[in-house]
Amino acid sequence: MKFSTIDTGQSGHPAVLFGDAELLDLTAYSARSAGSHIVPPSVRGILETGDKALEVVRSCLDEVDTMSEDERAGLREEDILRDLAGTPLNAPIPDPRLIMSAGLNYGRHLDEMSGTPRPSRPTAFIKAASTLTGSGKPIIVPPQCADHIDFEGEFTFVFGRPCHRVSIDEAFDYVAGYTIVNDVSARDWVPEVFKSEGTFGSIQAWERNIMGKQLPTFSPSGPFMVTKDEIDDPHDLQLTTTLNGKVMQSTKTDDLIFKVHDLISYFSEWYQFLPGDLFTTGSPAGVGFGRDPQVFMKAGDVIEVEAEGIGKLSNTLVSEGV
Amino acid sequence: MKFSTIDTGQSGHPAVLFGDAELLDLTAYSARSAGSHIVPPSVRGILETGDKALEVVRSCLDEVDTMSEDERAGLREEDILRDLAGTPLNAPIPDPRLIMSAGLNYGRHLDEMSGTPRPSRPTAFIKAASTLTGSGKPIIVPPQCADHIDFEGEFTFVFGRPCHRVSIDEAFDYVAGYTIVNDVSARDWVPEVFKSEGTFGSIQAWERNIMGKQLPTFSPSGPFMVTKDEIDDPHDLQLTTTLNGKVMQSTKTDDLIFKVHDLISYFSEWYQFLPGDLFTTGSPAGVGFGRDPQVFMKAGDVIEVEAEGIGKLSNTLVSEGV
Repeated sequence: MKFSTIDTGQSGHPAVLFGDAELLDLTAYSARSAGSHIVPPSVRGILETGDKALEVVRSCLDEVDTMSEDERAGLREEDILRDLAGTPLNAPIPDPRLIMSAGLNYGRHLDEMSGTPRPSRPTAFIKAASTLTGSGKPIIVPPQCADHIDFEGEFTFVFGRPCHRVSIDEAFDYVAGYTIVNDVSARDWVPEVFKSEGTFGSIQAWERNIMGKQLPTFSPSGPFMVTKDEIDDPHDLQLTTTLNGKVMQSTKTDDLIFKVHDLISYFSEWYQFLPGDLFTTGSPAGVGFGRDPQVFMKAGDVIEVEAEGIGKLSNTLVSEGV
Repeated sequence: MKFSTIDTGQSGHPAVLFGDAELLDLTAYSARSAGSHIVPPSVRGILETGDKALEVVRSCLDEVDTMSEDERAGLREEDILRDLAGTPLNAPIPDPRLIMSAGLNYGRHLDEMSGTPRPSRPTAFIKAASTLTGSGKPIIVPPQCADHIDFEGEFTFVFGRPCHRVSIDEAFDYVAGYTIVNDVSARDWVPEVFKSEGTFGSIQAWERNIMGKQLPTFSPSGPFMVTKDEIDDPHDLQLTTTLNGKVMQSTKTDDLIFKVHDLISYFSEWYQFLPGDLFTTGSPAGVGFGRDPQVFMKAGDVIEVEAEGIGKLSNTLVSEGV
């Protein structure tokens, strides 16, 4: 199943893809079915409730599938079944308690970032949840750091169960599914990471790297969170980022240095992950900073990240206040 | 007003201190008053609703204050008015969307951490919300890194409004109140920060510092979030940490290098803070790592952090699984 969150102007409604081009609004469908299908009020809530809630959603889909065309037309009339194309979306999970982002996790991306050495252990940082936005929503260009806005199209996994101190073998039991995050950065900081001298300087540069990723709308995510049963091998997916239609990043996820299970096992030694938490697995090669000449995004640009079996995340850059 | 969250086994109930030693359970009181006082279901919800919700809570307190002794006895019978001492607490805000923690923010603490230089800009990192626990709850000693568990008693402010790109002069308008966080660390990493060579080594050491702070129960907070009207000057509070009754950290908050308004203005240039977000302002001198000989905490130890006008946060270390 492919879950989205419909932007209803307030907290949003969980929804699930019906067919190829329609979303079933689960909150509205659940209200209409008068208690026979109780669906938690958010995708995170569905994951927290677990397999039972997933079964209820599946039975909603089955019910709609076996309806007469007239009945489905009624659902469309009531905006319970909606065209995917015209429906405003939040991030599929707009309220995760934690977003972890792996860095330095694709070999060729390290080469392009001034020859950063390959890490001996996974490395990651936290992004604030206030950076999230949906597919189709604008990425706001911040006036205070407008000139080095870069993209990083990232394959992302989502936790389905509380997860602490988990072995590599068990790791996939804690995954609910997969989504896409564009880890947008204001890269004004980058040269400092490589040119600063001494321990303290480079720590500050690392921190400024992370700050440049915390601006509002700098984590577009979606359009879907796909349940893991739909992805045969998460390490064999094509991942492509295009800027105004031109391919900028193209890789298979088999180029990941640390795989999904490695990241879960390593970081769960310290962190406790909770249902709905996101883990972006790192950027492949091809970011704007690493190009010659460098390419940065500006207002009007369209940036899209497509992951095989998951969907295409699409956003346009817009100046603040426009 | 002093807000707490009562641990009810599920999501908890917001509560407010009545007199010196009792908590008014706002969810239970609101249910009993049959709609005349509608209180949001969490302290974060109260902050999100803003002044209106604070007024409702104040009118609840006034109402209880003007009741007859018999009526109050009735509230005690129904567990709506509860002894503070016997009531299990969560963190006052158990579900913040962001916990930022300033580092390197007290002059004498820098001296004790192997002579770390004074930063020219504020520095901070994010703690995962899954680290939070309440006053009176155990700090779980992690078996995988049990030997260097350190305390950092920190004065903490809480955001009351969405806050992005705010000047120093406006900063206090965005503060809802104050609380205490003990920023507990597994310090196995520390020597690397100072001994590692080269940019990449020190970045990894900084990251491992942060990982050692992400373990479950490593952010005890509370017992109260005090509304800002009750604190005349947040930079003139006595802050004291004791370990088994012995004073380990003692400072006035006037020793903060970057003040509350500095931190808000600086970090809001990137981050958008939301109501209920916590910002711990950094550890004063006296941490166990900086002592000669070093002092680390072990199962059975009682660690307490007291801040003038806010309260005393008290926790006992307990081995995992006990």
